[in-house]
Amino acid sequence: MRQPIVFVTDFGRDDAYAAALTGAAWRVDPHAICVEGTHGIPPGDVLGAAYQVKALARAFAGGAVLCAVVDPGVGTERRAIAVKAGRIRCVAPDNGLVSYLWEESSPDDRWAVRVDIARDASPTFHGRDVFAPFAAQLSSRERFDSTGDLIDDPVILAGAFAQRDGTRLTGRVAVVDHFGNAITTIRDVDLGGRRVRSVTWRGGAAPGLVATYADIDTGLGALIGSAGHLEIAGRGAAAVAAGGPHLGDAVEVELG
Amino acid sequence: MRQPIVFVTDFGRDDAYAAALTGAAWRVDPHAICVEGTHGIPPGDVLGAAYQVKALARAFAGGAVLCAVVDPGVGTERRAIAVKAGRIRCVAPDNGLVSYLWEESSPDDRWAVRVDIARDASPTFHGRDVFAPFAAQLSSRERFDSTGDLIDDPVILAGAFAQRDGTRLTGRVAVVDHFGNAITTIRDVDLGGRRVRSVTWRGGAAPGLVATYADIDTGLGALIGSAGHLEIAGRGAAAVAAGGPHLGDAVEVELG
Amino acid sequence: MRQPIVFVTDFGRDDAYAAALTGAAWRVDPHAICVEGTHGIPPGDVLGAAYQVKALARAFAGGAVLCAVVDPGVGTERRAIAVKAGRIRCVAPDNGLVSYLWEESSPDDRWAVRVDIARDASPTFHGRDVFAPFAAQLSSRERFDSTGDLIDDPVILAGAFAQRDGTRLTGRVAVVDHFGNAITTIRDVDLGGRRVRSVTWRGGAAPGLVATYADIDTGLGALIGSAGHLEIAGRGAAAVAAGGPHLGDAVEVELG
Repeated sequence: MRQPIVFVTDFGRDDAYAAALTGAAWRVDPHAICVEGTHGIPPGDVLGAAYQVKALARAFAGGAVLCAVVDPGVGTERRAIAVKAGRIRCVAPDNGLVSYLWEESSPDDRWAVRVDIARDASPTFHGRDVFAPFAAQLSSRERFDSTGDLIDDPVILAGAFAQRDGTRLTGRVAVVDHFGNAITTIRDVDLGGRRVRSVTWRGGAAPGLVATYADIDTGLGALIGSAGHLEIAGRGAAAVAAGGPHLGDAVEVELG
Repeated sequence: MRQPIVFVTDFGRDDAYAAALTGAAWRVDPHAICVEGTHGIPPGDVLGAAYQVKALARAFAGGAVLCAVVDPGVGTERRAIAVKAGRIRCVAPDNGLVSYLWEESSPDDRWAVRVDIARDASPTFHGRDVFAPFAAQLSSRERFDSTGDLIDDPVILAGAFAQRDGTRLTGRVAVVDHFGNAITTIRDVDLGGRRVRSVTWRGGAAPGLVATYADIDTGLGALIGSAGHLEIAGRGAAAVAAGGPHLGDAVEVELG
Repeated sequence: MRQPIVFVTDFGRDDAYAAALTGAAWRVDPHAICVEGTHGIPPGDVLGAAYQVKALARAFAGGAVLCAVVDPGVGTERRAIAVKAGRIRCVAPDNGLVSYLWEESSPDDRWAVRVDIARDASPTFHGRDVFAPFAAQLSSRERFDSTGDLIDDPVILAGAFAQRDGTRLTGRVAVVDHFGNAITTIRDVDLGGRRVRSVTWRGGAAPGLVATYADIDTGLGALIGSAGHLEIAGRGAAAVAAGGPHLGDAVEVELG
């Protein structure tokens, strides 16, 4: 059965670029099922896009081909790759977009290949000329091998993962979402089942974790969001407006 | 025949939340037809969403399952409901989102049920774990009864409807649309076929109604918009920039 | 085979207007394939929309019905038209939206017809009541004639095309895209295969053309973008922030 192609880009929605991906996929496969994951990644923000790739892989856990195009290096020598992790496949420039997808998969259940870039691909628009067509090829077939040379070293962003030092975890804000919640690189698995004693950042702190947004009385609270990452949220307002951390700021967790 | 699922949320389009609804619907029904009504409701604005639910019910008058998720109370005790009004069904938290849909339907042709919330639903994301899956269940079958306990008291927003006092109607601005038009809670049916002598708000007035935007010479005009609500519009500019009312401001109509 | 309907409007995505087009198309043809080209044209910007119509015609070169609705004159006497250019058909108000589509097609391979406007069409929303339904009629059949009276004079925007004076081309910025690139009305075909010696605008200049964005070292560069128009781009930043031209500004090219 044909799997949906889910786009994740920084193209925005005000130009023809986003729809051009659907057009390019349909040229390969007129029955391709195209879904807009999001085109709202901040321009060039590979870490933010890697997080949304993870969130969408969870949302389409039944199987999907993610087509991730945040590609400041388009037209240069950077590789194009495709990754398979469980039932999810992902086509992307090799710049770290698959960081969570790759690292959070079992080594027995993940593969990566290098994707050829045709000589006549526009040097400014590999999304249309390389990634979307390749995604359309993948979405209509189960086989993943023999699509390119196997590689085992996709680029992984070091900054995508929290560091642990004793009872202290240090991460940073990877995404500020539409509601102003500051989503960090600190994940539920990083907590190891231990209690959170405090969450701190330059100029602010939250005393521990709450279960849901409505449990935040006033000011700020920390909770585990829907993709399993610790986030700092305000009560009916953007976290940053209530003294929360900004995109990129360091956040520390003290475990109990 | 399968009806489309039309989403109405305040999720924005820059994260994975909106697409996650489609993923969740497809997990229930791989052939679900998912449409983005809008994900651009101002965060937490239930009245604005209730208006867009009405507008989309008109736009998909042949039949649709609206899935409305503006849900500041997610994770609390508020009910989840489904409403049927003619050929439109709507799944939503019970906070007033169905105000127009319910009140503008004949009592003989509307039903509401309470929807169960699974214990393992994420406390932060009922859109994905409750509303979208239930919408997918409804969209592929005609039957509406036996889906939950019947209720007859969905929450209705008092502020969604204009008050009448003699020849005076008092409403307020429910939505400021993309063009800056200030759409009020005063509806064509509220006019009762009578002439509009004046439309006033704090600091401004329009002398009566015009037929279309191009009829506004200079400054501001009032007209009945495409969903049957009185709106105040500027000539090629946002109404508020020309002295029009803001979101939430009171607006009065004097009938002839 | 049914062709996709691709919408191009200035409706934004925060109201029900955009989705209402899909609803209206489905009322005519429940199997219509609706694609959001873009709803992000600046309000009333016919030239910007004409450019996106061209870009989307390229992106859906296998065939599509574009439904372009940037329509400040809705409800007035302006004509509604449909154009066929090769495998692309386009339904639009007759205000210049088809400028590139018409002028860049061979006179042997283009047709235009006048589209009837039903008397009961809402005077404020021809997108829903005229253009989307007509697009749905076209998308499911090959025939284009006998859909309306043939015309040969669709409105063409004079400002959509660069002027040539000896070795000098003068155009202007038609679109500033999501990345801040300033896309001009100067096209690769206007260069006639000659070398670009300089690109200048009030207060700035670029020395010639580069091949791709990553070739811009610092400051600004000029290149031919993915739809064949000359654009001025910044290195990882909006062109205007680095001294580039604004929307509407004149741009000159000196040919070698």
